[in-house]
Amino acid sequence: METTELAHQRKVEVCFSPALFPVYYSSRNCVVVVIDVFRATSAICTAFQAGIERIIPVSTVDEARQYQDKGFLAAAERQGEVVEGFELGNSPFHYMDKDLKGKELVLTTTNGTKAIERAKAADHILIGSFLNLDAVCKHLVELNKNVILLCAGWKDRFNLEDSLFAGAVVEQLAQTDVYTGLADSSLAALNIYNSAKSDLNDFLKSSSHRNRLAKLDLEKDIRYCLQTNTMDLVPVFKGNGLSL
Amino acid sequence: METTELAHQRKVEVCFSPALFPVYYSSRNCVVVVIDVFRATSAICTAFQAGIERIIPVSTVDEARQYQDKGFLAAAERQGEVVEGFELGNSPFHYMDKDLKGKELVLTTTNGTKAIERAKAADHILIGSFLNLDAVCKHLVELNKNVILLCAGWKDRFNLEDSLFAGAVVEQLAQTDVYTGLADSSLAALNIYNSAKSDLNDFLKSSSHRNRLAKLDLEKDIRYCLQTNTMDLVPVFKGNGLSL
Repeated sequence: METTELAHQRKVEVCFSPALFPVYYSSRNCVVVVIDVFRATSAICTAFQAGIERIIPVSTVDEARQYQDKGFLAAAERQGEVVEGFELGNSPFHYMDKDLKGKELVLTTTNGTKAIERAKAADHILIGSFLNLDAVCKHLVELNKNVILLCAGWKDRFNLEDSLFAGAVVEQLAQTDVYTGLADSSLAALNIYNSAKSDLNDFLKSSSHRNRLAKLDLEKDIRYCLQTNTMDLVPVFKGNGLSL
Repeated sequence: METTELAHQRKVEVCFSPALFPVYYSSRNCVVVVIDVFRATSAICTAFQAGIERIIPVSTVDEARQYQDKGFLAAAERQGEVVEGFELGNSPFHYMDKDLKGKELVLTTTNGTKAIERAKAADHILIGSFLNLDAVCKHLVELNKNVILLCAGWKDRFNLEDSLFAGAVVEQLAQTDVYTGLADSSLAALNIYNSAKSDLNDFLKSSSHRNRLAKLDLEKDIRYCLQTNTMDLVPVFKGNGLSL
């Protein structure tokens, strides 16, 4: 009886900071959705939409430079800005209207690529953003495994926009009969998302990272990243890189 | 100009797990409110209301046993239950209708005393629960320092009830002109509290720890711990123990 129940009941938990990942991670046999809405995971989805073949996430700017020196296309962002010596950062607009078809990109960002690094212990890692929300949820239901929604946050602190996206995923998974008995973290994310979903941009007007980006004149990026379901793709981590 | 602003602007952040404390803690010169609504901090407040003089929180059951062997009154809880060999655990009802006046108690619990242990780096540590909500907020405003609301959670995981209490504190602090520009974590806790405050017990009906306690037949404890402002006291940490 217990075995049957286990086979049909999957957990979905929200990990609000990469620093908490070891607390939530207990088995390789799970799916981790890495979430960095402003802007790494939105940029990654956009790059794949533009035809890129593969993205190699790296943790440090030095690693990105070493790849660059070997002739790789490389992107680096720190504190919301493109790092000196690189042409690309984590703005989705850096990956539009470019001929990226079949290309490989090395990427390092303040929070997003560090979250991917942490998640590497898991068997399945997906990249989630509002741009590919439905595609991510569909993929999760197909995989039928326990889910950790890993918010990249800001330097290991809780942030609102990633938590909102986690809540949007919880909303869809809770409507299936697989993910029952939501964890407290999932209930919290769902509650916040329900308060925010009628106008995400307005809800986030007081949030710290939105204001950080607004100061950097990145309002256009914010509006872009808060669009929902503009692409039907899910970047997944295989080997040492992301691909479709 | 900047100095004047700093003197009047204090931060309030919510740390949703003891494991995240190092991320939020940057200076001794702050106040940490330790929160373990179900049930350590509610029990601590209740013990002081019953006249206890001092509580020494310890991290392990072994330490509590060593104190017990020396003749100390000692309490120990793990997984929601009183540890074998102890008469007292973390139920507030263990500290009522007893002659505790002037006594000293050694206490270890699954989450609450571990959170106190983590917070020890800070200059000011207060014990918060719904029972002494207003008293805690008044004390915080008087101290006029940056605030970290440290949720004990459940084994380093996010939990709802501690986050709700954090939201209740944020609500009061945000009404002053001192704590402006709320952190994302504070905005989230406030949002959840606003959804829940009309009926905390009902809001928590799906929460994991409430259900864990209900299974242990502790509904009476839950109802007790969700009462607001039944006592006007604030336990504070000084030296190696808590006192008023």
